[in-house]
Amino acid sequence: MVTRLSHFFLRTLREDPADAEVASHRLLVRAGYIRRQAPGIFAWLPLGLKVKAKIEAIIREEMANAGAYEVHFPALLPRDPYEASGRWEEYGDGMFRLKDRKGADYLLAPTHEEVFTLLVKDLYSSYKDLPLTIYQIQDKYRDEARPRAGLLRGREFTMKDAYSFDASDEGLDASYQAQRDAYERIYRRLGLEYVIVDADAGAMGGSKSEEFLHPTPIGEDTFVRSAGGYAANVEAFTTLVPESIPFDGLPDPVIFDSPDTPTIPTLVAHCNAVLDPPADGGEWTAAHTLKNVVLALKHLDGTRELVIVGLPGDRDIDDKRVEVVFAPAEVEQATEEDFERHPFLVKGYIGPWSPTGPVLGEESATGIRYLLDPRVVDGTSWITGANIDQKHVHTLVAGRDFTADGFVEVATVREGDPAPDGSGPVTLARGMEIGHVFQLGRKYADALGLKVLDENGKLVTVTMGSYGIGVTRILAIIAELNNDDKGLIWPASVAPFDVHVVATGRDAAAFELAESLSADLEAAGLDVLFDDRPKVSPGVKFGDAELVGVPRIVIVGRGAAAGEVELWDRRTGAREVVPAAEAVGRLTAV
Amino acid sequence: MVTRLSHFFLRTLREDPADAEVASHRLLVRAGYIRRQAPGIFAWLPLGLKVKAKIEAIIREEMANAGAYEVHFPALLPRDPYEASGRWEEYGDGMFRLKDRKGADYLLAPTHEEVFTLLVKDLYSSYKDLPLTIYQIQDKYRDEARPRAGLLRGREFTMKDAYSFDASDEGLDASYQAQRDAYERIYRRLGLEYVIVDADAGAMGGSKSEEFLHPTPIGEDTFVRSAGGYAANVEAFTTLVPESIPFDGLPDPVIFDSPDTPTIPTLVAHCNAVLDPPADGGEWTAAHTLKNVVLALKHLDGTRELVIVGLPGDRDIDDKRVEVVFAPAEVEQATEEDFERHPFLVKGYIGPWSPTGPVLGEESATGIRYLLDPRVVDGTSWITGANIDQKHVHTLVAGRDFTADGFVEVATVREGDPAPDGSGPVTLARGMEIGHVFQLGRKYADALGLKVLDENGKLVTVTMGSYGIGVTRILAIIAELNNDDKGLIWPASVAPFDVHVVATGRDAAAFELAESLSADLEAAGLDVLFDDRPKVSPGVKFGDAELVGVPRIVIVGRGAAAGEVELWDRRTGAREVVPAAEAVGRLTAV
Repeated sequence: MVTRLSHFFLRTLREDPADAEVASHRLLVRAGYIRRQAPGIFAWLPLGLKVKAKIEAIIREEMANAGAYEVHFPALLPRDPYEASGRWEEYGDGMFRLKDRKGADYLLAPTHEEVFTLLVKDLYSSYKDLPLTIYQIQDKYRDEARPRAGLLRGREFTMKDAYSFDASDEGLDASYQAQRDAYERIYRRLGLEYVIVDADAGAMGGSKSEEFLHPTPIGEDTFVRSAGGYAANVEAFTTLVPESIPFDGLPDPVIFDSPDTPTIPTLVAHCNAVLDPPADGGEWTAAHTLKNVVLALKHLDGTRELVIVGLPGDRDIDDKRVEVVFAPAEVEQATEEDFERHPFLVKGYIGPWSPTGPVLGEESATGIRYLLDPRVVDGTSWITGANIDQKHVHTLVAGRDFTADGFVEVATVREGDPAPDGSGPVTLARGMEIGHVFQLGRKYADALGLKVLDENGKLVTVTMGSYGIGVTRILAIIAELNNDDKGLIWPASVAPFDVHVVATGRDAAAFELAESLSADLEAAGLDVLFDDRPKVSPGVKFGDAELVGVPRIVIVGRGAAAGEVELWDRRTGAREVVPAAEAVGRLTAV
Repeated sequence: MVTRLSHFFLRTLREDPADAEVASHRLLVRAGYIRRQAPGIFAWLPLGLKVKAKIEAIIREEMANAGAYEVHFPALLPRDPYEASGRWEEYGDGMFRLKDRKGADYLLAPTHEEVFTLLVKDLYSSYKDLPLTIYQIQDKYRDEARPRAGLLRGREFTMKDAYSFDASDEGLDASYQAQRDAYERIYRRLGLEYVIVDADAGAMGGSKSEEFLHPTPIGEDTFVRSAGGYAANVEAFTTLVPESIPFDGLPDPVIFDSPDTPTIPTLVAHCNAVLDPPADGGEWTAAHTLKNVVLALKHLDGTRELVIVGLPGDRDIDDKRVEVVFAPAEVEQATEEDFERHPFLVKGYIGPWSPTGPVLGEESATGIRYLLDPRVVDGTSWITGANIDQKHVHTLVAGRDFTADGFVEVATVREGDPAPDGSGPVTLARGMEIGHVFQLGRKYADALGLKVLDENGKLVTVTMGSYGIGVTRILAIIAELNNDDKGLIWPASVAPFDVHVVATGRDAAAFELAESLSADLEAAGLDVLFDDRPKVSPGVKFGDAELVGVPRIVIVGRGAAAGEVELWDRRTGAREVVPAAEAVGRLTAV
């Protein structure tokens, strides 16, 4: 097909959109791929739609290769299934809700686990019907609090979501692997480097969970990996728990005056000034202190709960990790009001122990859960608050002097932390999420009653997997990774056109040659964008070609009389004059 | 591609769905094409999605041939543009509305005129940019009061909606014609017979408007046509207005007693009993009477207005015509309360005149508009109510004794009524709407400020056209028209598969031959559904094949040992035994 720019619905823009924070957003709008309709909601213009269709075609092919069948659910769904799974509540403000004319509750689906589960329940009844993997490529809605970065975090977005159904755990493993393999093929075809990292199953429930991340310094996600092959996102990273230490011979806790030391740095400086040095002879550091952070959890039912997390003073609480641990509750800092309501919490001097016995932990009468970082193993000795204003305690031994109501993985992860599988120290890197595969297990099947008869005629609950790729997000990521200061540079596999033919000058011969060359390229099976605009300067045409980003450009201009055209590689910038007769061969050979 | 039924996501059902009123709904659910999610909202299963994709591909090709470019708008749109056009209000309960987490108003778009207009306003500025036609294939939402007939009147449905933009009326005519031609090509390729009828532009505003109807006795729309080439739907039909008659010499109106004659039949019987026969010597008939119907209009602003329509007593008010005439107001019958509030309306004896002067019409002090059927021309003489209980008046002459506030086309259309273009009497027929093309004119461009500079550098308002095909509706209509008591029978152009290969019996040779035949058909470029289910009886397999409706079936069974297969034409039922070696040639030749 030859698409003529003189008629094509395309206007490139000189100005960056005012709200664009990232390159993909800026360039996709300027080059005429998308157009904003509302915060996080975009219209797709012809160029954008073509790239999107190419990405979808690759995904469809690989889903078919993985034995998955395509279906399509509506975006508008009734409340009931989401009520049964608990997600009508759990999703909070992130879900668009509405009522129909009869007052019945509906939602715009953020994901479709529930209705896929019910569809299979509706039609299948035996283990012989399984395994089954079905998927859709469909527009989803999430009412993001802060839609941003163009398509990277929109409120409407296209996703490929697949769901597998198996009668056994082994079956689920195989279905999971088939999707995981398909994802690897998809990213290879899209030219997207990826790392597969362990992910936290989080609010979605279930067991095994892996994310595909594209490693890039501009990524919004942090992940860790070890030379020995461990990789996880920070939410899923777990601490390699040290051995416990025997209590025998450890001295008793000692309360000491520590005026004006409500922070870790002031406390450490004070310790080095007034205490004997630590047993290893060095200085007191933040790592010797136990920091106790008061958090407030806002539960779905509207209740507010305080919890206190104890962690080594050289670590902070990681926002993403703490969010995952306490989901679906929302986590906030404790407020002055919280402290006023609990006067035994002496701000800046909180600790799990007092001279008269435990304050927090297992035997606490406070009603406040005390949760510890896993590094605080039995026998470790700490400097921490004494629950008395202006006083701390040292040689406070975990397991002997205080205990916890549980352990939580909420501390920041650092370069050099040991990987939990013993494969050595980890390094930190940044990445962008490009896919997610995980084993839901029986959560949805249990909630919605999806059972089949097994070999022995007994009803067994089906086990499920869920596999997602954000199509529009992937498109934005490819744009984010493939551009320069002139514009976009698409990989050939997803470029909106195969070739961009630019006719320049006022010479009719150039336009005629460009015309016949375009026809020849079309006949050779290429999809051609032909800049046939009559009164537009070469500079504007070249600028548009660079902005639009078709990777292979042919300039037909002054050399046309001599039967020559110029091949221009958008990515390398290389230009080469070749006889027009050779151009088709060169462009189809690439 | 070969799709194996042993793994394919398909379950045919024996029972009709309880809520299915029409064949397409019943069969598409039973044969595993769609599955209900909520009233008027369906999920698409693999078979359904394949047919839908084929219809969409045909539409895309013909849109490209018509020079239209594809874009894609979100379903979720902000209120503002629809507020500007007035449709936020006008759509009433038919539009799904919702709020985002910040309380901003959104809607699920029922059509997209506004945002297409704004997109072009956003990017285009000169007459040189035009003409332009852009379209999308997109899921739309309408909160129908009574979703029914499966996909025929759903609340979520897929539409191709195209919009043309021109700087001149001539340009609009050309753009309109290009879409109209494309529609004709689309229906021919889909094997859908069509009639193009004049349609009322109705609530959408604008001027020229035509509907494509598929003529079928099971259609829900009525249309009229004349032997001379006139065709219109009943909403658009207009009366061929008779010549006025001179008043000279017409006798004065006469009031007469007419006890217990509140209906036309009782009045006619009474007239024949007490009055001299009409001048033409026949009997008094309903056609001699003027019926006055009191309607209540519910306006968008919540106000209620009474209007009285006067029409020949042998006609009724047509629900669809009256709805179009008074849209966006809703039309109801007047209630007892309405009559109580207007005591001068003597129920059963209402008329436009009283002995003391006009009651209704131009000089009425009632505040009630009096609207006449166009047949009530000046000089026609009527028997009608005298506004006095138990009394009527005869020889009441239009134009002399009473006038109207206007004329309305709300009377039923009958076989034999003259076509308005003088092409002779019309016949009535039923049809299903399969497409709609119409000239919006400048309604949306005016409301939203879409202007371009013309040749002289002056701003002119753009004129638009709007062109819609309901993709999912078309699919249902094709199913509605192509089935028998066994199941669906798809036209080849949209069938989910090209061939359905059925292996029967327990003979391994049959399965092997079916396997290799399927591979050969795939190699020949056909999309094959292969029923390879091992332990399913031939009867069940044949029943499924008939239900699913792939038009060409190959049975590989007992004859396999002799190298023979059976070709089965689903539509004609014809079966023919042929050597397996010839099957591919026969099936690709069709």
